[in-house]
Amino acid sequence: MIFENMDKIVFAGDSVTDMGSAQPVGDQMFDNLGQSYVRRIDNLLGAVYPERYIRIINSGISGNTSRDLLARWERDVLRFDPQWVSICIGINDVWRQFDIPTAPEYACTPEEYRANLTAMLDSLKGRVKGAFLMTPWYMEPNKTDFMRARMEEYVNICRELAAQYDFVTLVDVQALFDRYFTVRHSAYIAWDRVHPNQVGATLIAREFLSHCGFDYGHEI
Amino acid sequence: MIFENMDKIVFAGDSVTDMGSAQPVGDQMFDNLGQSYVRRIDNLLGAVYPERYIRIINSGISGNTSRDLLARWERDVLRFDPQWVSICIGINDVWRQFDIPTAPEYACTPEEYRANLTAMLDSLKGRVKGAFLMTPWYMEPNKTDFMRARMEEYVNICRELAAQYDFVTLVDVQALFDRYFTVRHSAYIAWDRVHPNQVGATLIAREFLSHCGFDYGHEI
Amino acid sequence: MIFENMDKIVFAGDSVTDMGSAQPVGDQMFDNLGQSYVRRIDNLLGAVYPERYIRIINSGISGNTSRDLLARWERDVLRFDPQWVSICIGINDVWRQFDIPTAPEYACTPEEYRANLTAMLDSLKGRVKGAFLMTPWYMEPNKTDFMRARMEEYVNICRELAAQYDFVTLVDVQALFDRYFTVRHSAYIAWDRVHPNQVGATLIAREFLSHCGFDYGHEI
Amino acid sequence: MIFENMDKIVFAGDSVTDMGSAQPVGDQMFDNLGQSYVRRIDNLLGAVYPERYIRIINSGISGNTSRDLLARWERDVLRFDPQWVSICIGINDVWRQFDIPTAPEYACTPEEYRANLTAMLDSLKGRVKGAFLMTPWYMEPNKTDFMRARMEEYVNICRELAAQYDFVTLVDVQALFDRYFTVRHSAYIAWDRVHPNQVGATLIAREFLSHCGFDYGHEI
Amino acid sequence: MIFENMDKIVFAGDSVTDMGSAQPVGDQMFDNLGQSYVRRIDNLLGAVYPERYIRIINSGISGNTSRDLLARWERDVLRFDPQWVSICIGINDVWRQFDIPTAPEYACTPEEYRANLTAMLDSLKGRVKGAFLMTPWYMEPNKTDFMRARMEEYVNICRELAAQYDFVTLVDVQALFDRYFTVRHSAYIAWDRVHPNQVGATLIAREFLSHCGFDYGHEI
Amino acid sequence: MIFENMDKIVFAGDSVTDMGSAQPVGDQMFDNLGQSYVRRIDNLLGAVYPERYIRIINSGISGNTSRDLLARWERDVLRFDPQWVSICIGINDVWRQFDIPTAPEYACTPEEYRANLTAMLDSLKGRVKGAFLMTPWYMEPNKTDFMRARMEEYVNICRELAAQYDFVTLVDVQALFDRYFTVRHSAYIAWDRVHPNQVGATLIAREFLSHCGFDYGHEI
Amino acid sequence: MIFENMDKIVFAGDSVTDMGSAQPVGDQMFDNLGQSYVRRIDNLLGAVYPERYIRIINSGISGNTSRDLLARWERDVLRFDPQWVSICIGINDVWRQFDIPTAPEYACTPEEYRANLTAMLDSLKGRVKGAFLMTPWYMEPNKTDFMRARMEEYVNICRELAAQYDFVTLVDVQALFDRYFTVRHSAYIAWDRVHPNQVGATLIAREFLSHCGFDYGHEI
Amino acid sequence: MIFENMDKIVFAGDSVTDMGSAQPVGDQMFDNLGQSYVRRIDNLLGAVYPERYIRIINSGISGNTSRDLLARWERDVLRFDPQWVSICIGINDVWRQFDIPTAPEYACTPEEYRANLTAMLDSLKGRVKGAFLMTPWYMEPNKTDFMRARMEEYVNICRELAAQYDFVTLVDVQALFDRYFTVRHSAYIAWDRVHPNQVGATLIAREFLSHCGFDYGHEI
Repeated sequence: MIFENMDKIVFAGDSVTDMGSAQPVGDQMFDNLGQSYVRRIDNLLGAVYPERYIRIINSGISGNTSRDLLARWERDVLRFDPQWVSICIGINDVWRQFDIPTAPEYACTPEEYRANLTAMLDSLKGRVKGAFLMTPWYMEPNKTDFMRARMEEYVNICRELAAQYDFVTLVDVQALFDRYFTVRHSAYIAWDRVHPNQVGATLIAREFLSHCGFDYGHEI
Repeated sequence: MIFENMDKIVFAGDSVTDMGSAQPVGDQMFDNLGQSYVRRIDNLLGAVYPERYIRIINSGISGNTSRDLLARWERDVLRFDPQWVSICIGINDVWRQFDIPTAPEYACTPEEYRANLTAMLDSLKGRVKGAFLMTPWYMEPNKTDFMRARMEEYVNICRELAAQYDFVTLVDVQALFDRYFTVRHSAYIAWDRVHPNQVGATLIAREFLSHCGFDYGHEI
Repeated sequence: MIFENMDKIVFAGDSVTDMGSAQPVGDQMFDNLGQSYVRRIDNLLGAVYPERYIRIINSGISGNTSRDLLARWERDVLRFDPQWVSICIGINDVWRQFDIPTAPEYACTPEEYRANLTAMLDSLKGRVKGAFLMTPWYMEPNKTDFMRARMEEYVNICRELAAQYDFVTLVDVQALFDRYFTVRHSAYIAWDRVHPNQVGATLIAREFLSHCGFDYGHEI
Repeated sequence: MIFENMDKIVFAGDSVTDMGSAQPVGDQMFDNLGQSYVRRIDNLLGAVYPERYIRIINSGISGNTSRDLLARWERDVLRFDPQWVSICIGINDVWRQFDIPTAPEYACTPEEYRANLTAMLDSLKGRVKGAFLMTPWYMEPNKTDFMRARMEEYVNICRELAAQYDFVTLVDVQALFDRYFTVRHSAYIAWDRVHPNQVGATLIAREFLSHCGFDYGHEI
Repeated sequence: MIFENMDKIVFAGDSVTDMGSAQPVGDQMFDNLGQSYVRRIDNLLGAVYPERYIRIINSGISGNTSRDLLARWERDVLRFDPQWVSICIGINDVWRQFDIPTAPEYACTPEEYRANLTAMLDSLKGRVKGAFLMTPWYMEPNKTDFMRARMEEYVNICRELAAQYDFVTLVDVQALFDRYFTVRHSAYIAWDRVHPNQVGATLIAREFLSHCGFDYGHEI
Repeated sequence: MIFENMDKIVFAGDSVTDMGSAQPVGDQMFDNLGQSYVRRIDNLLGAVYPERYIRIINSGISGNTSRDLLARWERDVLRFDPQWVSICIGINDVWRQFDIPTAPEYACTPEEYRANLTAMLDSLKGRVKGAFLMTPWYMEPNKTDFMRARMEEYVNICRELAAQYDFVTLVDVQALFDRYFTVRHSAYIAWDRVHPNQVGATLIAREFLSHCGFDYGHEI
Repeated sequence: MIFENMDKIVFAGDSVTDMGSAQPVGDQMFDNLGQSYVRRIDNLLGAVYPERYIRIINSGISGNTSRDLLARWERDVLRFDPQWVSICIGINDVWRQFDIPTAPEYACTPEEYRANLTAMLDSLKGRVKGAFLMTPWYMEPNKTDFMRARMEEYVNICRELAAQYDFVTLVDVQALFDRYFTVRHSAYIAWDRVHPNQVGATLIAREFLSHCGFDYGHEI
Repeated sequence: MIFENMDKIVFAGDSVTDMGSAQPVGDQMFDNLGQSYVRRIDNLLGAVYPERYIRIINSGISGNTSRDLLARWERDVLRFDPQWVSICIGINDVWRQFDIPTAPEYACTPEEYRANLTAMLDSLKGRVKGAFLMTPWYMEPNKTDFMRARMEEYVNICRELAAQYDFVTLVDVQALFDRYFTVRHSAYIAWDRVHPNQVGATLIAREFLSHCGFDYGHEI
């Protein structure tokens, strides 16, 4: 598995990363990691690889857009000198265009989104062993839905950026959900087509770990 | 307008009717009508037709299926001897098939749904001036979505039943939303594609009142 | 209708404008507009004109007199660069003279009230498409009541000022209530003759929108 | 003073008597008398006549009409075998006709009001040293107000009944307020023209005690 | 009566003055005067002399000693430019010597107490129409009780100071309670022999007003 | 020490025994013994004699008089088949005569008190290894105080009864406090001269255990 | 995998099974499964095998011993007609012997424990596809610890019973923890050596599923 | 006994000292000492030696390591100019190494622990009558347990330091618990093997006082 003893992984993002974690960051102390996929990843690593100490830091804050995350990048990500960073941002960049369309200043355009992500990734070059770019998602399999179509633009930016940086691994959560919804309806894992419940969080965690050489059957 | 002085209207349904109303029924006393379309209808009638006393009774209870509503029909609807009854039920009959598919006993099949509605409507014959059948809905314009497709079956049952009873008026809320979503995304009026916010409640209220000879410009 | 796509309307006022809105301002985000006439206006515009994006900002703060509102005018009104501004202030300027008559510094004299309103309106000249001046009110139809008589002086100041500024529309809420109370008692829409319930809020919203070319029957 | 050592006085009524007293009755134990005029009477008697033990029992329950009070008369009044009984009821009999005019079953007609009071007074004959009939009130000096005019009918029933029973003393609270409001506005002592604050409660208590030979300057 | 229209009276003190009033001061606005003797004085003045506007300001803060009160004298007393000031302080100066005898810095010696009071009274000379010095108290009639004996020293300082300043009226509350407890036990008006309940507050208010030309039978 | 392995001791009483224990009884499970002298006895026995299992049961209920305790004697005391029973009752029998003197039915006369205690003690004859009778108390060293004088009558009844039953040990708490207050004021251990704080509870526990052969220096 | 479409699995137990689940049972509806290993199993099955509907029912109740569980066996287990039943009970049977050793009636002896489990298993014969017997545990690797030694007796009873019933699979959680604690200290997964945190719950879930043919890498 | 009239004792430490005391320090005022051994010591001194005023100051703060305590040493210990200081620190220095092993910065190494303690003790030289060094503890009698073995290193540092300073008395709490657990299981006095309940607190208090010439049988 790629995570070594005493590695630190920072998960940066919005509410789907946060899900009740300590503010501004949770770091495994006293049940403060929240209930998102981050907690599920922490649980699986702790249960399966107890012989390695892997530090999980949850830097998700509800409601953040990529603009908000960039503004706190130094304080909530870089200051920990992590070996690994995972970014999952963009849902609010899009959502605000649909739930409060009267207020464009709350959203980010695709151009700004790309610029914000680029700034984050550039800052990591040479400072980390690797980074993960998780695509944002909308749990709507119908690609003609207004919001899904808009989200696709942001998802594609992630796909393009991941291809441009050699230390970045793409975790294509939107694609994962598209497969999953061929069998189950989104109502099974989310009330609002955005925030996964713990089944959904487990699904994302498995996808994430599949890029990390994680061996579920590993025994100590 | 069809509602006359001292008429009573009972609105029977589930959470989209309830929305915080007193349990089991709210009846205009001390802010107990909740915040659903029922409150919006009450507000518009009270503001525009103050010279008529129209009693609004909210018999919505969250989570109800048509089976649950039928079980409390006598206690929460008939006992008030209303002049008018409006029924808005069926969303949970369908939803449970998707958010907890492992438990079929929580849902109602289309056959049971039709039977339950029929029993309700039969009980009203000769006892009311008129009744309203509001279709259940799913705020998903894509008709190939699993849950929307299933909902359509129930919506059609409402359409058929409304045609069979001469004292019943159809309020086709699903069709109303389909039109609305050609312009705005569902995220603007609901988090979960089921429970409308107050904009959505106003939209439903306007649709309902359009079948009642309501004159918005009426002056006392 | 006079409000165009992407127009912003700021509603400035006291508790009858505020009614639970976010502090200091609510702006349509996450149910933060409160339950006053402002919410009712937002609901009707959103339901009837979904093809236009109209930003509603609630700048009401409970307990404010015209002096308090003027003190926060820049922060809570002008900084949003609104196309439209509506002012509804003065109730507390008068009320404090009757519920805590021992403390004249909590109230505003008619002279100060006129000066405060003038300062607000002057600041809007050339910066907005239009402004609304809603009269304060006391839900007491008997004009010899001490407090109603005093309120009449302030209402008249509004009427005079609205006539002096060509970009200002008067919304005469006191007159509206006087008509309404010929049919219903004030106890039906307010506990304290000041704060309207949602029926009263709907009544005010209809009056406001009647000055805006609002077409209730508009279809998309 | 008419109250002797070990006398019990039951104050029966609605919310203006109750004001937070223990339910269904408060009896001087552990701060359970509420904050209405009953507490003020208890305070004055306890402060001025400590050498007499006078038991004060608060049998007020919020929202009661005369029908509700009659229904609990045995349990909350007679069972205490009081030497004195004071009745203050009727406000809700009238108020419900104005704040929820659509529901006539919540109110009491003048005929029923008279019958209910008569039943109460008849039950006291020969069982008490004396009784007090406090008029209901509406803090509206304008007698042409719809609700004040209606209240006047009920007040007059009290005046008539008090004259018919020789053991009954009238406490004309409506008249008291009418005098008071020639000097101060009702906003000074009540938010809703019904529930007096502690100044109002003191005013009522003084009026009540003026019929009891109470000597404020009494020294032990 | 000595209080004239628009007079302001500041009541400065500790918890027996405070009793839930707004912090740091309550001034008759929105039920913020607490439930001590100050509220009872306000109630009696408001009920009996409505034709005069008398401003009552409660500057009591729980736990204060004379040292604490002096430290906030400018902010909580003088800044209001009152016509009248009443001081009731000293209970905590003594009490701390008995409930936390290990911490002498929490108490004030008689010497400091006299100095603190003197500073307060000197500051009022020529600035007020008059001042009241209420003695502190301990509701223990047995003068050999350790704490009562100690309190007597402080009470006597008040008596001496009141005699030295011609604009100061002594309100001897300790003496008042001594008389009262010849008839009733202190358990009737206080749980802890310090904080009077509302009967006790009424007793103090009557005593205070007896020095002010207050006429309980006054009619408007 | 007299308590042997697996002995059960029931402490019956009122609020000074209860002090937050589980209702109706606390039995050492999950912090449910409250904070009275019972907890202090449990703590000392558990810390000093861990090699013996001694079951402590707290059957104190706030507000109880001897009448109330007798009414629940079977349910809260006898049903546990205890080896030892301790009774501490009577404070409320007396207190109610002073804090609510208007309601004699809340108190118990000395005659009833003696009868109630006698019934309790008779029921224990032959069923227990021994019983303890703790005197009630009033933390007032001045024996001419009305309430202390009255309490003395009840204390003396305890002293007399303890002498009459050979299996009963007197724990003279009133005498204990009288000694203690020659050095410290009651304010140090109680706010209301009735409910001891944890210092007072420790004092009582030591007194109780001094009758039980308890050896504080015992080592395992 | 052994669980087929529409299978029901009931997990019966105490607090380590319950962990906040709905009472008396949670069944996947609205986040009501708690946070124990049951939720982790549900999450993994839902994420990895979405094409099968598997009903998870959490019948854990905090504080239960095997005696308590047997008493509710019909209501909380059998009534669901499950295809599979998992039993995890016994921790409280032992724990009560150590945290409240004075009260033997709260614990169960090994004999009773064996009898209770036997009654449960016998009731399942021929009614289920299979059953799981999870051993109770104490997270103390030192086998000479008093409580661990005692727990071992109960663990061994599980091992013996699992061998006697051919439809029963043993899940040896105590052995699992013994292995885990060779690498990590128990403080990492539990505060009290009994209740696992979510890492511990994940560890148990993986162990459980390893007996069920669960394929973590399964793709739909 | 070594503590004289008006002596001050500061107890510095972490959560086992704090246990709900006021923050940052509790000083006997208004029930603010918490429920740890500090409260038990205060209770015993107050009950047994009322003729001496001994000030107890609780400077425990939950979660503190020796590094945290040193950082606040001036503010929370030295500033009180105590005659005696007791230090009980180190549990968190060790615990963090086991419950969050991924975050070494939260723990303190033995070297740092020794340095921190040395700094504290050096600061006390010549300023106090005496100091107490209480060993940290882990309630695990098995010395091969990872965390107990690690704790032993810190306990030994205390033992060594106490021997080096002539004004320092060692209170060997770890040894005390080792003896106690030969008879009772740790589950009886702690849930987590760290925080003693009130029985455990009493045990520690007795041990502490055994070094102070405390005579439990002392009479005033």
